[in-house]
Amino acid sequence: MDTLCDKLRDPVSRLMEPCSIAVIGASANPGKRGYQIVQSLQRNGYPHPIFPVNPRGGAILGLAVVTDVLSLPDNVDLAVIARPAADVLDVLAACRRKGVAGAVVLANGFKESGPEGARLQEELKRFIAQGGIRVVGPNTSGMINFGCGADLVGLRQATRHGPVGAITQSGNMLLSLLADIEKHATPGLDVYVGLGNQIDVGFSELLTTMALRPSVKAIALHAEGFHDGRALLAAAAEVARTHPVVLLRGGRSDAGRRTALSHTGSVSGSDRPTVGVMRQVGVTLVERSDELAIVAGALSSLPLPRTGAGVAVLSDGGGHATLAVDHLEAAGIRLARLSEQTRGALREQLGDTAVVGNPIDVASAIDASPPLFARCVQILHDDPDVGLVLIVGLLGGYHLRFDSAEKPAEDEACRAIAEWAHARRFPIVVHSCYEHRRPSPHAHLRDRGIPVTGSIEHAVACVRAVVERGAWLGSIAERTRGADFQRLQGPVRMRIDERSADAPSPGSMPEPAARRLLEAHGMETGPWSLARSADEARERVQAFGVACALKIVADGLSHKSDVGGVRLSVDADSAAGVYGDMTARIRDACPQARIEGVLVAPMIARGTELFLGVTLDADYGPLIAFGAGGITVEAVKDVAFRALPITPLEAREMILETRISKLLAGYRGMPSISVEALARLIVDVGSTALRVENLVDLEFNPIILNESGLHIADVRLISTS
Amino acid sequence: MDTLCDKLRDPVSRLMEPCSIAVIGASANPGKRGYQIVQSLQRNGYPHPIFPVNPRGGAILGLAVVTDVLSLPDNVDLAVIARPAADVLDVLAACRRKGVAGAVVLANGFKESGPEGARLQEELKRFIAQGGIRVVGPNTSGMINFGCGADLVGLRQATRHGPVGAITQSGNMLLSLLADIEKHATPGLDVYVGLGNQIDVGFSELLTTMALRPSVKAIALHAEGFHDGRALLAAAAEVARTHPVVLLRGGRSDAGRRTALSHTGSVSGSDRPTVGVMRQVGVTLVERSDELAIVAGALSSLPLPRTGAGVAVLSDGGGHATLAVDHLEAAGIRLARLSEQTRGALREQLGDTAVVGNPIDVASAIDASPPLFARCVQILHDDPDVGLVLIVGLLGGYHLRFDSAEKPAEDEACRAIAEWAHARRFPIVVHSCYEHRRPSPHAHLRDRGIPVTGSIEHAVACVRAVVERGAWLGSIAERTRGADFQRLQGPVRMRIDERSADAPSPGSMPEPAARRLLEAHGMETGPWSLARSADEARERVQAFGVACALKIVADGLSHKSDVGGVRLSVDADSAAGVYGDMTARIRDACPQARIEGVLVAPMIARGTELFLGVTLDADYGPLIAFGAGGITVEAVKDVAFRALPITPLEAREMILETRISKLLAGYRGMPSISVEALARLIVDVGSTALRVENLVDLEFNPIILNESGLHIADVRLISTS
Repeated sequence: MDTLCDKLRDPVSRLMEPCSIAVIGASANPGKRGYQIVQSLQRNGYPHPIFPVNPRGGAILGLAVVTDVLSLPDNVDLAVIARPAADVLDVLAACRRKGVAGAVVLANGFKESGPEGARLQEELKRFIAQGGIRVVGPNTSGMINFGCGADLVGLRQATRHGPVGAITQSGNMLLSLLADIEKHATPGLDVYVGLGNQIDVGFSELLTTMALRPSVKAIALHAEGFHDGRALLAAAAEVARTHPVVLLRGGRSDAGRRTALSHTGSVSGSDRPTVGVMRQVGVTLVERSDELAIVAGALSSLPLPRTGAGVAVLSDGGGHATLAVDHLEAAGIRLARLSEQTRGALREQLGDTAVVGNPIDVASAIDASPPLFARCVQILHDDPDVGLVLIVGLLGGYHLRFDSAEKPAEDEACRAIAEWAHARRFPIVVHSCYEHRRPSPHAHLRDRGIPVTGSIEHAVACVRAVVERGAWLGSIAERTRGADFQRLQGPVRMRIDERSADAPSPGSMPEPAARRLLEAHGMETGPWSLARSADEARERVQAFGVACALKIVADGLSHKSDVGGVRLSVDADSAAGVYGDMTARIRDACPQARIEGVLVAPMIARGTELFLGVTLDADYGPLIAFGAGGITVEAVKDVAFRALPITPLEAREMILETRISKLLAGYRGMPSISVEALARLIVDVGSTALRVENLVDLEFNPIILNESGLHIADVRLISTS
Repeated sequence: MDTLCDKLRDPVSRLMEPCSIAVIGASANPGKRGYQIVQSLQRNGYPHPIFPVNPRGGAILGLAVVTDVLSLPDNVDLAVIARPAADVLDVLAACRRKGVAGAVVLANGFKESGPEGARLQEELKRFIAQGGIRVVGPNTSGMINFGCGADLVGLRQATRHGPVGAITQSGNMLLSLLADIEKHATPGLDVYVGLGNQIDVGFSELLTTMALRPSVKAIALHAEGFHDGRALLAAAAEVARTHPVVLLRGGRSDAGRRTALSHTGSVSGSDRPTVGVMRQVGVTLVERSDELAIVAGALSSLPLPRTGAGVAVLSDGGGHATLAVDHLEAAGIRLARLSEQTRGALREQLGDTAVVGNPIDVASAIDASPPLFARCVQILHDDPDVGLVLIVGLLGGYHLRFDSAEKPAEDEACRAIAEWAHARRFPIVVHSCYEHRRPSPHAHLRDRGIPVTGSIEHAVACVRAVVERGAWLGSIAERTRGADFQRLQGPVRMRIDERSADAPSPGSMPEPAARRLLEAHGMETGPWSLARSADEARERVQAFGVACALKIVADGLSHKSDVGGVRLSVDADSAAGVYGDMTARIRDACPQARIEGVLVAPMIARGTELFLGVTLDADYGPLIAFGAGGITVEAVKDVAFRALPITPLEAREMILETRISKLLAGYRGMPSISVEALARLIVDVGSTALRVENLVDLEFNPIILNESGLHIADVRLISTS
């Protein structure tokens, strides 16, 4: 207990669970935030001391006003600063002198507002870097502790205390979350922090600190980009081991990114890397804002399905079942294969009109007797291939649809299902088209953590989230730890910072040098040779004994093939001529290029073209990418990402995310490769790349998969050295 | 008026707007459907005669019971048959004798239940084919006319009469629709028909008939497949010119198709063709069941945006705006480019803290004054590039969020927006995270047809639907008419039916015959020649003067390349040898193959591989398909479909649906082709294919796009002749 308490008393924890609050810029004017915050704390019954601060003194809402920050008692947990941007620095300095643990800065007018605001923000940043006080914001809607009533946002609505921690970049996303919690009767919030411009406290630290709160069972994030994505990966990879983390991204599209920039001054990177790395660290992604509360709520209360088991759909009427199955299949969720025994037992319960496949359609058997549902769930639970039951249709609303006299029976059926499933930690998700009526049977289900939704699609989103989380946790020993992500942060940060204007700009290394560098680090890149004269070119081709590709090697030349710098299928007889031709042409077309020679490599037979690359991402540090290769890679965009270091399991999952992975098993006579072998290559390339100093970008494109295996056709390496 | 009335009195219209109802199988037992229907009609104040029919006689709910069908008055509009499957045929026969216009058959136990039921269904079908009575069902939940209270489903909930017609395959989808209408306060239903097994009245006829009702402004469909897809295309292409039609498909996945089969005995085909042909005929597709009511409601009330104009997003707070823009971009909806004048006018209204790009973020300007929204909308309307305004954030909830004293101002602001937009027929969609509280300002918006939703994603779905419908109607003159789809129905049906077991099975035509057939119909397939001997092979290659591809021509051989039946880059010197080699090998490997010779065609330089094909679809008749080609076409699945006949505009839209279309403009030195030229080819191939008798399947795969244009590398033609 002591340890936990100690942990909870770090400044960020004190800020989230404050035992005293100073309201700086408190006001007697009910139209001002400085009044509303005091009012809100009182209305919510916040039980600890509140100190309004205003140079005018007097009293606000019955509380004596402190005339300046320096007159506050020492070591206040939290100061909320309701003063304009220009005053914030002075107020913070005073707070620090008085030992205030953390401050929430509401003002806007910083980076999001233009150059002058950006200057103010930099000033503030330098001050905070000196230590002594932690800051949330600026440009934030505030913080709320729903347990003790510390509501700095000043909500005017009744809210339920619940198990979900929420961190959002935009204040309005809190309003959406609360609306969805109320609308869908999902589990409520425990604590909320609006990060705003993230000048100090950011997602990663807050995520870790929030997970230390015993009252938090799941964490919902809304982000438009991460200032230090690698730290977030490290934090999330650890937090996700104990807590579900759900992320809604804003700024996924080009237009959305521009909007995010003007709104909190944060630039979110391309969305594809985010999708890959978040899956890697076990973060649940939601694509729709209207699913954040529902999915986070479901994950906070649902037990996990048996690893590897499938989903059973229990329905009344085929229409809903068909739609549920469509969405499950689209989400890649496997339906359970029911055993003969299970089918027999269901048939016995449901009679001849029912369909006892999966989905199970109870048809008209249930109309007469809702309690049959409880028995079906029990039968399904006993099938080892059923990990979760999704009930779709009318459950809980039969008494509304057919006969109100059935209500007690339906209450009892739902209570029985809930208690029974709770005792066995068996996950159930319920869709009912009477959910919006809030019938009492649903309350029994929810009381035991069973999500009930009125939308089939929301129900499937819950199922998907819990099944995917189960799969992630089920193989946790084979996944990269947070510390491994963290370890790379320092040197990577340095290399990223070197990309600034005054640093030497990173350059593409000539291919022979790149291949030699990789080979020096123990990585084979296939047969190749450098020819520095026409004669050498002939000799090299002769030595390989097969037709070769010849590629110009020249500094200051980017798209070789566009200027005739690549010739394919050259035999020994013509090699010298091709060399002379090619070098003359390049000298002509690009006089500035410094020609080193020609790279000679045996022709590679046609096959499936793959892409494999490592890049130093400004958000997430070193990433590895795999997908469809060739010159159309950017147009086709069939590429998946993961953060380095990567494990074989993670590489396999990355491969299977691509469409091209469907061709790897061999297709209509095309060559095949096992996902395992490819995963090993990916892991090797990843670890080699990490050993190469100053590496910014490494691309093998294409890697050709043909009858004789994998062949690297082209190596491109960019470094800052 | 007379004409309309006459039309309305066709049997299916009488069934939907009955002036008399017979309840066959009426019962005095409140637990029976035969009681509940009578009760439901009375409860809803159905104003016309109700005739309960039951051999026991007496009275039910105060109405004298008719003892048998033959004692009914003549020409009753609608009989609802609440009798078991086995009795239905006799009852229908009696109904027909009495001139009953239409019957709704509730019983299940037909095709969906197994062989015995399928037999009953066939018997019923034969009876109906004789004419004299129209039938909805069997296995249906019934029909409801919300205007006159003719509710055969027996709902126990209050419902609002509204402008949406609904046709569903599954009865439970009605419950979902009604739940969503209530939950989201969207426009209600005018008439509902549950089709069930569609033994007689199907989607196409009902769609056309429903559109004749003056009270119907939009039609919502839920379907798990169409028994006669071509008739539906013909109907939808015409109805969509006057009425929005929204379709939710069930059975899109493999598992979902199996489920649909066991549920209404209908088999839905692959989903890709459905997506293509529905877009072609102007049907709005929704992917989520929870969007059917919302989108149909929005389309029923929203005016259309100016053709070609973009969308403006008006937000309070960047978080919601960023998410809205993300989803709009993902849906392919263009954001409006605001003019300098517009920006200036907005800046004047909103002050310095606002962001006056698109999205427009009113920032804190509005908190103080919701009526500013009305002025912003007016400014945006005056910008010629703004076709629609999407408002996201808190509109209508400011008085709940900040100060209840603001309510009158907010009511007034929303009323002003609604009246103003209504007068100008300017489309506005509103997202508000206070929607679930049903604040009165939202009622003003809804009263004038402005959809208000609590979900950003639902709001974007409404925007997308109305923008896409505007684009479709905006170019209506360039689209295929229903009659043109209809014209092909007869012969196509015949050819599809020929595929039955006892008809000659369709066969693949040898490629030379296929090419000759196409050439005879005026379509060039490129240079080729048939060699019947080794000497001829050498001569042919010599005549072409370039290296050629040689392909075996043999009956009874499917995958030529798998058995060594294809050789590339053969020159004249080696042609004879290759011929001998190839024919010997095939004779060896496939003794049953009848070798005709070898097809010789000049080698085609590498390029982008495309697919173009025509197929006789069992659901929709002749379809044309275009996309990424090569041997991986089935694995990559980047193919779009349209029904034939196709117009150039429709072909262009089909091309742009594929991912590979991004490469057509030329990419990193690859050859390019205009979408127009490709569309012309597609239209030509489509009309040629329609002229070829007995055609079942035509495939050009690949068509290679290289520097010298498009080249057909392989022709495959399957016919029933």
